[in-house]
Amino acid sequence: MAFKIVHKDKNSKARTGLLYTNRGIIQTPVFMPVGTQATVKALPPNALEELGCQIILGNAYHLYLRPGTKIIRAAGGLHNFMNWHGPILTDSGGYQVFSLSLLRKVTDEGVKFQSHIDGSVHFIGPRECLRIQDDLASDISMVLDECVGYPSDYDEVKISVRRTLNWARLSREFKKSNPGMVFAIVQGSTYKDLRQYCAEELTNMSFDGYAVGGVSVGEPAELIYEIIDYTVPLLPENKPRYVMGMGTPEDILESVGHGADMFDCIIPTRYGRTGSAFTSQGKLNLKNAKYTEDFSPVDAQCGCYLCRNFTRAYVRHLFYANEMLGPQLLSLHNIAFYINMMIGIRQAIAEDRFISFRDDFLCGYSRANANDV
Amino acid sequence: MAFKIVHKDKNSKARTGLLYTNRGIIQTPVFMPVGTQATVKALPPNALEELGCQIILGNAYHLYLRPGTKIIRAAGGLHNFMNWHGPILTDSGGYQVFSLSLLRKVTDEGVKFQSHIDGSVHFIGPRECLRIQDDLASDISMVLDECVGYPSDYDEVKISVRRTLNWARLSREFKKSNPGMVFAIVQGSTYKDLRQYCAEELTNMSFDGYAVGGVSVGEPAELIYEIIDYTVPLLPENKPRYVMGMGTPEDILESVGHGADMFDCIIPTRYGRTGSAFTSQGKLNLKNAKYTEDFSPVDAQCGCYLCRNFTRAYVRHLFYANEMLGPQLLSLHNIAFYINMMIGIRQAIAEDRFISFRDDFLCGYSRANANDV
Repeated sequence: MAFKIVHKDKNSKARTGLLYTNRGIIQTPVFMPVGTQATVKALPPNALEELGCQIILGNAYHLYLRPGTKIIRAAGGLHNFMNWHGPILTDSGGYQVFSLSLLRKVTDEGVKFQSHIDGSVHFIGPRECLRIQDDLASDISMVLDECVGYPSDYDEVKISVRRTLNWARLSREFKKSNPGMVFAIVQGSTYKDLRQYCAEELTNMSFDGYAVGGVSVGEPAELIYEIIDYTVPLLPENKPRYVMGMGTPEDILESVGHGADMFDCIIPTRYGRTGSAFTSQGKLNLKNAKYTEDFSPVDAQCGCYLCRNFTRAYVRHLFYANEMLGPQLLSLHNIAFYINMMIGIRQAIAEDRFISFRDDFLCGYSRANANDV
Repeated sequence: MAFKIVHKDKNSKARTGLLYTNRGIIQTPVFMPVGTQATVKALPPNALEELGCQIILGNAYHLYLRPGTKIIRAAGGLHNFMNWHGPILTDSGGYQVFSLSLLRKVTDEGVKFQSHIDGSVHFIGPRECLRIQDDLASDISMVLDECVGYPSDYDEVKISVRRTLNWARLSREFKKSNPGMVFAIVQGSTYKDLRQYCAEELTNMSFDGYAVGGVSVGEPAELIYEIIDYTVPLLPENKPRYVMGMGTPEDILESVGHGADMFDCIIPTRYGRTGSAFTSQGKLNLKNAKYTEDFSPVDAQCGCYLCRNFTRAYVRHLFYANEMLGPQLLSLHNIAFYINMMIGIRQAIAEDRFISFRDDFLCGYSRANANDV
């Protein structure tokens, strides 16, 4: 058994679980820091370990283009290459082809696209996509999916969902040389019946886990929650459920309440690099002049290296002086904040108090949010 | 006694010593990583501690302008502000006014200059300079000096040396509120008699230590060594001798052989940020294509976090992909390399084999130097 539900919260659909990977057991709900290019930006792997990080994300699209799978295979896989020996989930690249690549042409066979780095032309089909992730020695591979933008016509999305399903079928048959799980991705844009159709068909193919994809591609915020709210429950209950690319602390709390188990997002590291801190009091923009002589910790409730040893005034100075240590320390803190939030979520679910945890969290969290950033 | 010579090498002027500061005893010869703006670039203070760093440098000019001494005083001094609790030497800013500031006017009273950050106008005389460093709670303050460029007329340098001496006299009388040493700086450009005159006059004023300044200001490389070679022995033997802003491993070995005790340089961190590694085999430019599939450590003889856990190929990838972790890891390694080189130097002096240590080091070091970078 690759996934076991440990406890279901009595007052919501939230659940805790254990995901058994080849490189360790992951407690869910879990946040996966994003290490797109074989590094979580600004964070060495020993720092991630110290924070209690259970799994990180890699990206097939980026790593295939740079440094190339040949080099990572020669290094003994992505874990050896980047010296992270915990589990790695690799994104298939479907979203990156959609969002980053230059000219692209999607056919039933796969995607032909131009690299965003050097304009070189590449083709990736569902088999090539899994082969890349197999070369990376990924612990959890994602199938190639077609990600459409918002808004998209119903008929266009229908064709795209059928293509995604066909690719999933071909992926199911792919023989990997490394052990590891394969997750499928539910698409369907904003159309409930297409989301449902996609989820049912994928469920019949019996993947190791299921993801909600094609969210946050230009649609208004309220629509994002609507998609999450009706799509997460469509995913099989006994499998890990992964909401891709989400999100803010609020997004994660919302999704956990609907029964989601896995999350990834660039927000904590990206915000960290640009001077914003997630704290128990809300999001703070530490470049703000009001922190110039604020000698309190970034978050008094946080026990990370930044919060134990430095002040808001110092972090502001680092950003103001363009010192790399600012992004480093704030990325570390933000990842610590997310990981600690997930620990809190898991404890709350285990004690059947997820709803009050969520409400308390958001109450404290929205305090500063209103008057800062 | 603030400085004690422990051992003199039998075959050179090299010596080991102990420098007693308010925040700990420093073993010399010592390399001081540069933390211009209240951070050694890309290195958190716990990393410096782990590397065995004994003392770091701060910069009065930069810190006075940003964040300003008011804020650092309010934080309880520079050590508290940046969370480095070992000794800090602060540079007076004489060199920065010379090299960085916009319009500047030097009079007998001091320097009027425009900030390189926002063009604001400031005046710093010898007393103001020490007051700034006192506000920073510096363990070793440097007196304000006038740094002239190369080439400079003899008569011009003579006036400048007299001004530097007058400022040193005023500095000697300054009453600091914090404990800490004050070092004077020998100027005199490329003129031996002016260097000698300056050193003698400063020696009579009995400072806690003496520095060679005004080196590496545009003069050809061979002249730099000539100045070092005749100026270091002019500094009083029983006081710590500091060669400012130098330099490469070769520069440090050369200067130690003439009896210098203290060094600082931006080279290890700056080179680290731009992809160059100091190694026992010489300087490597890791952005070079030949490292693309080189899975050996950056320096097999180094025990730092980078060399224990990552490969040249990975470091090259990080730089190629513009990942911040590249500069972070390589700055760490280069500082480790410098600190370990100083440990080797001290051991060699203690065993009267400095000359053979230096020659062996340079022999190994020059091997790759010729065919890389």
